[in-house]
Amino acid sequence: MEVFIEPIGRLINEFSKLPGVGKKTAQRYAYKIIGMTEAEAKQFAEAVVYCKQRVKYCKVCGNFTEEETCAICKTRSSSSICVVKEPKDVIALEKLHEFNGSYHVLHGVISPMDGIGPNDIRIKELLARIDGNVKEVIMATNPDVEGEATAMYIAKLLKPLGVNVTRLAHGIPVGGELEYTDEVTLSRAFSERKQI
Amino acid sequence: MEVFIEPIGRLINEFSKLPGVGKKTAQRYAYKIIGMTEAEAKQFAEAVVYCKQRVKYCKVCGNFTEEETCAICKTRSSSSICVVKEPKDVIALEKLHEFNGSYHVLHGVISPMDGIGPNDIRIKELLARIDGNVKEVIMATNPDVEGEATAMYIAKLLKPLGVNVTRLAHGIPVGGELEYTDEVTLSRAFSERKQI
Repeated sequence: MEVFIEPIGRLINEFSKLPGVGKKTAQRYAYKIIGMTEAEAKQFAEAVVYCKQRVKYCKVCGNFTEEETCAICKTRSSSSICVVKEPKDVIALEKLHEFNGSYHVLHGVISPMDGIGPNDIRIKELLARIDGNVKEVIMATNPDVEGEATAMYIAKLLKPLGVNVTRLAHGIPVGGELEYTDEVTLSRAFSERKQI
Repeated sequence: MEVFIEPIGRLINEFSKLPGVGKKTAQRYAYKIIGMTEAEAKQFAEAVVYCKQRVKYCKVCGNFTEEETCAICKTRSSSSICVVKEPKDVIALEKLHEFNGSYHVLHGVISPMDGIGPNDIRIKELLARIDGNVKEVIMATNPDVEGEATAMYIAKLLKPLGVNVTRLAHGIPVGGELEYTDEVTLSRAFSERKQI
């Protein structure tokens, strides 16, 4: 006899597809679903399908949207464009309430190891957005090897177009301790020191 | 502007209902769903509703089943009945492949603090199962205060019926270290020492 009856086994299998969820966690989630009322379980399932069906990518910037173009592209100036790897990076930056330009989501970074070249991410779309109005492009890809390489690659393409290309600052995280800061970060923080 | 568009916010809210899932984890799960194909998302949602609709509780023992009575009640002897708190405890014990009697799931334990009395859990149903065939009832509720109290309560009801009532052994976990074993467990292990 199987340990789990088929509907439970199937649900555990589905939950296991979520990031960071193993068999044991998936089991706990499945028990939670079984403990719900049928209405609650249906509401849960509907939210999954609804989210998948409704959420599209903005034609202009590539961010999550329910319409053709996202709320940011519709209402904000594109004189400054912040380039990020993924839509969730837009959400992280939006939480700051500091930047009021628009975004461009690459949907990946250049990574030869994974066979991802410049044509596999939304670089062409970014170049197409560069006109006389765009004053600054802020490269906000992750500070890892691929993110840096992608930022450099795009910067090289943009500079001849007369656009000011900037990059997020590297350094010691606020509240961090020198002792526990990794060497590369500390070295960057040192070489990019500023007059106070 | 809201940080999340409505379908994503709704899905994050649903995922947050799962045990141990906070906003940040729910966000990761939602991104995973958005990254799936529509067919995959539908399959996920269907598994939720299917599991909820198909899984019922066995009329006899209270375990998960898709039919009126579960596969264990249908095929195994009830000369020995193992009493557990929840259906997931049946799964934990079944993984041992050691016990070949049947189970009785209480769906809770007596807990006056939470207003759960003997009539709120499946004790009546257990008593109804006691006939001449039942030789042993193994109390396998959790080794916490409520589990112990429930085991004692049921044992008192069963003994006059001439049933042999046993309890899972307490002691040092296999592979554990004396130094890190809590005092209550160590004291139980000491007082219940066995001749070798």
